[in-house]
Amino acid sequence: MIIDVHAHYYPPRYLELIGRPGLPPVAAAALAGQSIGERLALLDKAGIDMQVLSVSQAQPYLPDPAAAAEAARVGNDLFAELCAEQPGRFLTFAALPLPHPDQSLAEIARVADLPAVVGFTIGCSVAGHQLDDPVLGPVLAELDRRRAIVFLHPVGQEGTPWLAGHNLAWLVGAPFEDTAAALRLILAGLPGRYPGLKFIVPHLGGTIPFLAARVTRKSADEVIGGLRGMYYDTVSGSPEALASACRILGAERMLFGTDYPYCDEPQFRHHLSYLGDAGLDDSDVGRITGGTAAALLGLGEPD
Amino acid sequence: MIIDVHAHYYPPRYLELIGRPGLPPVAAAALAGQSIGERLALLDKAGIDMQVLSVSQAQPYLPDPAAAAEAARVGNDLFAELCAEQPGRFLTFAALPLPHPDQSLAEIARVADLPAVVGFTIGCSVAGHQLDDPVLGPVLAELDRRRAIVFLHPVGQEGTPWLAGHNLAWLVGAPFEDTAAALRLILAGLPGRYPGLKFIVPHLGGTIPFLAARVTRKSADEVIGGLRGMYYDTVSGSPEALASACRILGAERMLFGTDYPYCDEPQFRHHLSYLGDAGLDDSDVGRITGGTAAALLGLGEPD
Amino acid sequence: MIIDVHAHYYPPRYLELIGRPGLPPVAAAALAGQSIGERLALLDKAGIDMQVLSVSQAQPYLPDPAAAAEAARVGNDLFAELCAEQPGRFLTFAALPLPHPDQSLAEIARVADLPAVVGFTIGCSVAGHQLDDPVLGPVLAELDRRRAIVFLHPVGQEGTPWLAGHNLAWLVGAPFEDTAAALRLILAGLPGRYPGLKFIVPHLGGTIPFLAARVTRKSADEVIGGLRGMYYDTVSGSPEALASACRILGAERMLFGTDYPYCDEPQFRHHLSYLGDAGLDDSDVGRITGGTAAALLGLGEPD
Amino acid sequence: MIIDVHAHYYPPRYLELIGRPGLPPVAAAALAGQSIGERLALLDKAGIDMQVLSVSQAQPYLPDPAAAAEAARVGNDLFAELCAEQPGRFLTFAALPLPHPDQSLAEIARVADLPAVVGFTIGCSVAGHQLDDPVLGPVLAELDRRRAIVFLHPVGQEGTPWLAGHNLAWLVGAPFEDTAAALRLILAGLPGRYPGLKFIVPHLGGTIPFLAARVTRKSADEVIGGLRGMYYDTVSGSPEALASACRILGAERMLFGTDYPYCDEPQFRHHLSYLGDAGLDDSDVGRITGGTAAALLGLGEPD
Repeated sequence: MIIDVHAHYYPPRYLELIGRPGLPPVAAAALAGQSIGERLALLDKAGIDMQVLSVSQAQPYLPDPAAAAEAARVGNDLFAELCAEQPGRFLTFAALPLPHPDQSLAEIARVADLPAVVGFTIGCSVAGHQLDDPVLGPVLAELDRRRAIVFLHPVGQEGTPWLAGHNLAWLVGAPFEDTAAALRLILAGLPGRYPGLKFIVPHLGGTIPFLAARVTRKSADEVIGGLRGMYYDTVSGSPEALASACRILGAERMLFGTDYPYCDEPQFRHHLSYLGDAGLDDSDVGRITGGTAAALLGLGEPD
Repeated sequence: MIIDVHAHYYPPRYLELIGRPGLPPVAAAALAGQSIGERLALLDKAGIDMQVLSVSQAQPYLPDPAAAAEAARVGNDLFAELCAEQPGRFLTFAALPLPHPDQSLAEIARVADLPAVVGFTIGCSVAGHQLDDPVLGPVLAELDRRRAIVFLHPVGQEGTPWLAGHNLAWLVGAPFEDTAAALRLILAGLPGRYPGLKFIVPHLGGTIPFLAARVTRKSADEVIGGLRGMYYDTVSGSPEALASACRILGAERMLFGTDYPYCDEPQFRHHLSYLGDAGLDDSDVGRITGGTAAALLGLGEPD
Repeated sequence: MIIDVHAHYYPPRYLELIGRPGLPPVAAAALAGQSIGERLALLDKAGIDMQVLSVSQAQPYLPDPAAAAEAARVGNDLFAELCAEQPGRFLTFAALPLPHPDQSLAEIARVADLPAVVGFTIGCSVAGHQLDDPVLGPVLAELDRRRAIVFLHPVGQEGTPWLAGHNLAWLVGAPFEDTAAALRLILAGLPGRYPGLKFIVPHLGGTIPFLAARVTRKSADEVIGGLRGMYYDTVSGSPEALASACRILGAERMLFGTDYPYCDEPQFRHHLSYLGDAGLDDSDVGRITGGTAAALLGLGEPD
Repeated sequence: MIIDVHAHYYPPRYLELIGRPGLPPVAAAALAGQSIGERLALLDKAGIDMQVLSVSQAQPYLPDPAAAAEAARVGNDLFAELCAEQPGRFLTFAALPLPHPDQSLAEIARVADLPAVVGFTIGCSVAGHQLDDPVLGPVLAELDRRRAIVFLHPVGQEGTPWLAGHNLAWLVGAPFEDTAAALRLILAGLPGRYPGLKFIVPHLGGTIPFLAARVTRKSADEVIGGLRGMYYDTVSGSPEALASACRILGAERMLFGTDYPYCDEPQFRHHLSYLGDAGLDDSDVGRITGGTAAALLGLGEPD
């Protein structure tokens, strides 16, 4: 079973509710125009059994608590609907109306036990709140109690002056967000406080494998140890980056992902095929493409 | 001849002029307390012939043009004095009173032909101005006319909310600054406009080698091509990061650096020794430790 | 002659060029849907002879120099065209493709002598550059040489975290921008360096009259003295705010303005009528409604 | 009884705990060097019976919850100690270790019933969180339950680019913070949600009286109505600003304050004497100098 844990879905009604109609830009997301049928055909051709869908940067992080709650509810329902219509093909990481604690706790209670929902997605930051912000405490505690998967995702730092313009916020800012969010969690001691949480950091941990020696030199060995307790998806495309990530973070922590629809068809296929070019054992490749995800998501017998 | 192109020097009188006395924090910079004699002994033990000194983040980027000009002048004179006192051991990348164009042009004219000055250092951003800001145009044009080396260096993004706290701004923010600055230069077309400039990007290009596949997928092959026209220093400590940087950016573009005094003695030595652990040819290692730098800096015969 | 110096115009083609189609929001700008004919009828009814048009926050401050230059050129031409079509009814403060110095100097040269152009409008900040930023030096010097009027206008600080949401950026952030920009000019010594410039600060100086005692207590008497050398428009609606502004900054420095179309018809009329409710001499009211502006703009005989 | 509700106190041990030793700058705070004895003599000379002390911008808003809690505890104890040593002369608005909810609730429980504590001080923003941020919800709810006074105070926006340099952040940024915080509370509906809270906004509401017509034009009459439900201190120095504040917000909402030690001795005395220059009834002046505060703070019989 081949499982793509990093794939997006943008129901138009949901995008309108969060005030970002038209997202994502077609130029950047070559496959954004595909119908569900076309997407399934693409998955079939590539041999991918299943996608775990999430909202990407299109989080329902509205300032008004009621509006955020409604957007999250409508969005999660539209995702669950698609999963129900295509049994065995789609699951979802549900979104939360953060930073509003009461509304988020209510949405967790409402959707956590839906068959489609295998975890939750949270931005690398939440409406300007970093992941160690106390406003997130009650929500992380509840997710911990449920031993939930938390799929992190960049939110876009176009407003950071040194990433403004030239699409730098997505070219490189997105993996910077991944890196900073994962390190912040470790350095704030959150995995220790919430041991039930299973974090997935996208893009091979952003830039963590490349900076591991620096991080260790300037902080402590324990930091890399902590990072080894998280999961990572393989959205990168560079065999040597993947090999490096496996050596430093562990091949058993890697989960196949495509960042669909932010790729054209050859790039989509490359996200799977390049896993074979990193000099990994076949058994590692098998675990990466589906075995680890199946166990993590609680899906039947991984093949 | 072994040349360390990434090494810092903090004359107290200069630090006072820029209002940052006490910099750098001793905890972070284990060797900051060394005298010049102790530093030379360390270089001798390690077999390093020469350091090219720069101000690191302690740039003279004061809002008042006259105060900035004075700080740059005093600083550059103190650096030149040390170089003169220790012939053959130290050279310097001079600092500029940016973002003030007239004062910076005057300082270039004043110091460019001093024997100690082999190039200029510019922050990855300059008092909130990015490197493609028009305020820098006249200065870059003059440096281009002189075919100058420009040694970039992070300035510290502690004020960027998602890098605030936990020392994230230096743990990972510094290589993020390198990455964004180098890409910004390319994407803004500055190397084409100023073909005489020779940029040195620290820390193996920050995170560029790890993100090269992503950058190419989301922008254009030409971007990596442009990056191959820059120089990089080897401050990293990770053999596989170095190997990756050499494959993607070119071993002939790498220049040995230590980030002295931001290391303890074993780390200082490791910055040199790890160059031998990356599976590079001996000739490449030789070019990295000194050959390329000697040619670039216009020093006699590289050994 | 009654002259409204603070009035806006939004040619759709210009708005598209700057990437802000649809500006301004109809809710906020009740009169934005009026045709030129309807606007002239409104002016006639109110007894207003003339409006000096400007782009408001819709400045052509694009990162790409060529794109900024084109937007400014097209925008200024569209404004000049309207002025030519309605002789004696409209004049304009031309916009500049800042922060790009060469392009801005070229646009000044191109339009400064057009009959419609009676001055220039510059944002309270320019694409993140404050008004004392050296990038603006050559442009301010040229405007000084031409003894030009510079009409400042807020650009919108929705991205300032403590002004985010609840429309705070326009409710109060706009006059905060006015206040800070005017004080920055004084505190940076720019009126002394560029004595030919005649600044107009909108909204009775933002909040300066109310804060004058505080500013004097915490800085120096000279600051208020410097502020008395600028001009101000009367967009406020509060008779006691106007009376205070006249006492502190001088009635002879006040210029009538309406902020058209950011008002409905009764508010539009109130911007003129409230000038009579502030306990001012009739002669002062006459100067405010047109006399001072006519002299400043170099228009025939003020009545 | 004359009561100064806006006065600060900076115990050195507390300043060290929050990492801001040396605050405030002597240049800005002429009276900062006074001993308690000298301060009492000054109060006696001016005829001021009592000061309600607060930490000004030196809030214990540290990222680490335990460190914040300790700083708040030590600080509040030092304030309470001084109050106990000088009975009848000092009271205090206690500080809270925000944004940490559990630690803040614990500190409220610990100090709310101390005789010295007559309310709480909260920054106009809290470590980057605005006052309508959900992280503050539990704390505001508890303060509401206790019908507590909340004395707002600016925290310093030196990092806001358009207020950077020239001391603009304190010259005018501080009253901008007051204005935005008070409006944000109203626009977010917090007084309705927490009807027991009694807010004091410093500096005559920042700039609210001057901008009232604009705020009403662009939002709704109810906003000014909501603002009339808050209290304000008289730190300004401008009789006409005070008169305007009384007309718009109500003389019965004004509380005398000095911003001690941010003034020299003549300025200190002026903060009291100018209350008589605003054309108010004597009875209003009496309420402003002490009557309203005595009732609000629950002090014996106001004279």
